[in-house]
Amino acid sequence: MELDFEGRMRVVIENIDPEIDQGRYSIKRTVGELVSVKADIYADGHDLITAVLLYRHSLHQDWQEVPMQLTANDRWRAEFKVKKTGVYLYTIKAWVDHFRTWQQDLREKYKAGQPVQVELKIGAELIEKTACRAQGPDHEVLKQWAGALKRGDDPETQVEAALSSELSGLMQRHPPKKWVSVYDKELSVEVERPQALFSAWYEFFPRSFGQKPGQHGTFKTSQKLLPYIAEMGFDVVYLPPIHPIGQTHRKGKNNQPQPQPNDPGSPWAIGSQQGGHKSIHPQLGTLSDFQEFVQKAAQHDLEVALDLAFQCSPDHPYVKEHPEWFLWRPDGSIQHAENPPKKYEDIIPLNIGTDDGQALWEELKSVVLFWVEKGIRLFRVDNPHTKPFAFWEWLIREVKKEHPDVLFLSEAFTRPKVMYRLAKAGFSQSYTYFTWRNSKHELQEYLRELTQTQIRQYFRPHFWPNTPDILPQFLQHGGRPAFLSRLVLAATLSSNYGIYGPAFELLVSEAVPKKEEYLNSEKYEIKNWDLSAPENIKGVITRVNQIRRKNPALQTTWNVSFLEADNDQLLCFSKTTPDLSNIVLVVVNLDPFHTQSGWVKVPVEDLKIDPHHPYLVHDLLSGDKYFWQGSRNYVELNPGVMPAHIFKVHRKVRREQDFDYFM
Amino acid sequence: MELDFEGRMRVVIENIDPEIDQGRYSIKRTVGELVSVKADIYADGHDLITAVLLYRHSLHQDWQEVPMQLTANDRWRAEFKVKKTGVYLYTIKAWVDHFRTWQQDLREKYKAGQPVQVELKIGAELIEKTACRAQGPDHEVLKQWAGALKRGDDPETQVEAALSSELSGLMQRHPPKKWVSVYDKELSVEVERPQALFSAWYEFFPRSFGQKPGQHGTFKTSQKLLPYIAEMGFDVVYLPPIHPIGQTHRKGKNNQPQPQPNDPGSPWAIGSQQGGHKSIHPQLGTLSDFQEFVQKAAQHDLEVALDLAFQCSPDHPYVKEHPEWFLWRPDGSIQHAENPPKKYEDIIPLNIGTDDGQALWEELKSVVLFWVEKGIRLFRVDNPHTKPFAFWEWLIREVKKEHPDVLFLSEAFTRPKVMYRLAKAGFSQSYTYFTWRNSKHELQEYLRELTQTQIRQYFRPHFWPNTPDILPQFLQHGGRPAFLSRLVLAATLSSNYGIYGPAFELLVSEAVPKKEEYLNSEKYEIKNWDLSAPENIKGVITRVNQIRRKNPALQTTWNVSFLEADNDQLLCFSKTTPDLSNIVLVVVNLDPFHTQSGWVKVPVEDLKIDPHHPYLVHDLLSGDKYFWQGSRNYVELNPGVMPAHIFKVHRKVRREQDFDYFM
Repeated sequence: MELDFEGRMRVVIENIDPEIDQGRYSIKRTVGELVSVKADIYADGHDLITAVLLYRHSLHQDWQEVPMQLTANDRWRAEFKVKKTGVYLYTIKAWVDHFRTWQQDLREKYKAGQPVQVELKIGAELIEKTACRAQGPDHEVLKQWAGALKRGDDPETQVEAALSSELSGLMQRHPPKKWVSVYDKELSVEVERPQALFSAWYEFFPRSFGQKPGQHGTFKTSQKLLPYIAEMGFDVVYLPPIHPIGQTHRKGKNNQPQPQPNDPGSPWAIGSQQGGHKSIHPQLGTLSDFQEFVQKAAQHDLEVALDLAFQCSPDHPYVKEHPEWFLWRPDGSIQHAENPPKKYEDIIPLNIGTDDGQALWEELKSVVLFWVEKGIRLFRVDNPHTKPFAFWEWLIREVKKEHPDVLFLSEAFTRPKVMYRLAKAGFSQSYTYFTWRNSKHELQEYLRELTQTQIRQYFRPHFWPNTPDILPQFLQHGGRPAFLSRLVLAATLSSNYGIYGPAFELLVSEAVPKKEEYLNSEKYEIKNWDLSAPENIKGVITRVNQIRRKNPALQTTWNVSFLEADNDQLLCFSKTTPDLSNIVLVVVNLDPFHTQSGWVKVPVEDLKIDPHHPYLVHDLLSGDKYFWQGSRNYVELNPGVMPAHIFKVHRKVRREQDFDYFM
Repeated sequence: MELDFEGRMRVVIENIDPEIDQGRYSIKRTVGELVSVKADIYADGHDLITAVLLYRHSLHQDWQEVPMQLTANDRWRAEFKVKKTGVYLYTIKAWVDHFRTWQQDLREKYKAGQPVQVELKIGAELIEKTACRAQGPDHEVLKQWAGALKRGDDPETQVEAALSSELSGLMQRHPPKKWVSVYDKELSVEVERPQALFSAWYEFFPRSFGQKPGQHGTFKTSQKLLPYIAEMGFDVVYLPPIHPIGQTHRKGKNNQPQPQPNDPGSPWAIGSQQGGHKSIHPQLGTLSDFQEFVQKAAQHDLEVALDLAFQCSPDHPYVKEHPEWFLWRPDGSIQHAENPPKKYEDIIPLNIGTDDGQALWEELKSVVLFWVEKGIRLFRVDNPHTKPFAFWEWLIREVKKEHPDVLFLSEAFTRPKVMYRLAKAGFSQSYTYFTWRNSKHELQEYLRELTQTQIRQYFRPHFWPNTPDILPQFLQHGGRPAFLSRLVLAATLSSNYGIYGPAFELLVSEAVPKKEEYLNSEKYEIKNWDLSAPENIKGVITRVNQIRRKNPALQTTWNVSFLEADNDQLLCFSKTTPDLSNIVLVVVNLDPFHTQSGWVKVPVEDLKIDPHHPYLVHDLLSGDKYFWQGSRNYVELNPGVMPAHIFKVHRKVRREQDFDYFM
């Protein structure tokens, strides 16, 4: 900082929250969310300070102002609501408020019986100076106030006038222009559409839904799945890569290096003579078939998400057209993907560290824009942590410039800081470790990290109980109760969640021995799913998605609050809207094998529940109703029946009343 | 950040600790202290990273490098020692280490029995590239290594060579020049002389030590106190302002507005016809008397600290010479200090917000430099929180430019953030709330804040049990035990501490009713202290200061670690040197009225004490010795005898041995 010989710019503004990495990255919000800003604001001495929060949409010129409130220990706060997508900016200004300080001193002196004539003159001078700045009628009115105070002939009336809210308001309208401290950065908010925060995804492989069992499915034949998905209440249909699949080193069933002639290969081995990332795998149909699929999906209120897997099969046209985009070995062979000693021969990485980086980056951007032009607004990005952060930051910014409604989901199962860094780079949503968090302590700690630390400002969790890559141990061994509890946890802890189906709703639990991979994985073969198999949980999924849609408390992740329970197998939490018009209490039995019971501590005070009267809790899963009272209440969950309650709390329904009306 | 089309600068360096307010302020150290630096360092993908901490004294051009170590969760650390006063700079650089990554992959592939001929060629290319950068003999040696690997005729030998520490070390000496990430800030360390961290201050009023009782003391007559102070073991003699005292509105005894003719006035009402901040109060003597006093003090190894009180009496020469430096009221009177409805008519503040700010700031700087030229290197600054932060930041920086050995102590008893902000502005030491922290919980919480948070990086606490302004309730009512426990707490919790004497060692406890002010305060009258009064604690003070000097563990504040005790009246803590060669355990009975006893939990594992054998604890206050064993040990303190133990722990002295040697 330059130090001049001015001590009049006395107010310090520091320690702003939220501010990510010194303002280097944006915080994230969806339309309608609040941005609550806090800062340490203080000056030397004892003068009073006025502080205002400034904000604007980057497309507007004028700042909006919100007065900040002092809370405690020189900490101030104010908030604003973001109303449209794009980038908002915010900052703070503050100044020593000489007029309010003078008012306070005057009040004290007058109360103590000290003479105030000279004080009134000092105040009049302050008002006159302000009058000079004021335009229009305020100018004259302020001069009149100054004149009235100056006379000093009737202290009682004049002190009353000096302290009046009328004069205070008038002065407030004309803050000083000089010696105002302005925070040295404009911080930014990336505002996205509401689906960035609230969505239910369903992932499936179209090729498994052919005309007849065993036939390769197409976009046309797999349309039949759309009403099935929509009826279960999902919003998003996410498809694994839809591009031509390479032949060279194609993987056979169960990831075998020697495929059978009919093995379809992994959709992530992208590129063949039929084309690359802008082409459709011929066995799935044509581009217009795909577009018809997208339209049909929209008719069911389903949005289609595509998979961005920036890697190639050895047959990808890029290999011949742009050999400079790949790593070549001294023996003339191309460097395939590996994690020594493991080899992934069907996949070759793009070499971002090439001297021709600009052309490669532009090409990949053109891939995204190609599908954006076809109407796609959701991209699930495969393994983003294996490409440079700078690339994603550039790509996402470039795409959002013209298309702020495009959302990117980061599939980075890697070290926490790398996952968070990708979110800072611009990903709208992120896969998480939820998939492996099973115990009460693990879940509580993880949710605390995601929702109670600065991470919540830029990292939107997306909870997946399973994926085509991951069949967790818990689902392998826990049976139907495990699928149900993981479903309820994913869908209620996080407002974004997804399942890989139909493997999930059909309770598929057979894994490659000692691994968390599906046996006979759909990644390498066409499956024949029996959607009407009796052992399925479609009904519960449907119910859970209905509950999410009807209860706004479940449409955000930031409001989760864990409740005490005296049983470590019972995870309990509340979610509420800020006005408490919607209160949801979730209780999950984490033990898939045994009935668990215990006492849950309901925070009646926080929830403004009258502790002296019963209140109704309505289990939206089972339909059962209970009258509870006070904070300690008993729960018992038999996982063989249903391992969870999702209670809606009716604070004001009393036992003596008829409560049919809320059904 | 600018985004170019380069993904090769892949390493992220962020979340550096220590870094104060985004590098805006320096951290502080004294000569010989360590700077331990941590940072999150990571990249996309799975390649290995090398990171180095860079540091240099600002007067040197070349950076020193320290390799950083990965601890956990992508957190790295390294440290360096500061060796001379002035400013050090530090930053971090890191890069993807392709050679080490290649070595790791080679090892895995070879272990798995995969062919490595091509791998060896790739490594040879990496080595050749490095050889091109290398100067001198390394150039040739690297080329030879590359040649040896390239041949690929004897994989076993070649893999062994490729992984050899010889080649690794050679490659490490020639890190890449391109695509190296360098942290975007150079952070700074303000390094001060050791006295900034370890000092014992004694404050007294020279005017109370005249030739005869009741006579105004002088620098000459008060020299007699120097051996007394030195014998008690203090390092610093701090004098209230020594400048001419104003007559106008001079305060009488007990802060009365109507003084008697002989009342000496408050030394903080600076300035009269005899001069201002660069003059000596005539009743104290001359400038040369003062300089002789400073020399005599030095002969007793005592440094003299002066009081910088940047305020004036109405008689200060500045008022006539520079009326523009003061605030004038509409009735032509000068604005005196006030905190409505309280008035301080004998003091008028300087108006830093004047249009002539530059001249005023320069004048105040010249005041400091005037006394620096007279040999003063310590300044206790009165009420710095009533002047702008920018002023202090400028002043301290200006003075330190030429005189890095000058230290400033901030006497800001105000809101915490203001106190901390002054420390950031450059104050070497700061008064604290210790004066009012009495309970175990309060003391532990406060020390945690001071030593376990970022605050420790820039705020050096200075603990005062009393000052001329403050006689705390606890000392008013707790008697001799209260003085003893507060002495031990101040002198052992904090490596900087001070007392206002002789009021402290003579146990003066009579206060203005219902206030924490001394009755018949020395601020307004000449006192006649009986230094040989039988009720004094000089002996204990002397002992405590000796203990501080002999035990390096007590010469820093950052190492305090509280121990569990099962009695809330017993405060227990340890202080140790990093190598555990000096271990001190302090136990204080906070209850001045009753004997308290309990069990203390000694962290034997941390202290590397063998839990299976007794170890000796030697109370350096009483001389008593005890054999303790394991973690739980009994203590009992009768405050009427001594409310504290200061144990030196002899880990290796066994009961069966003769332990006289360590006496």
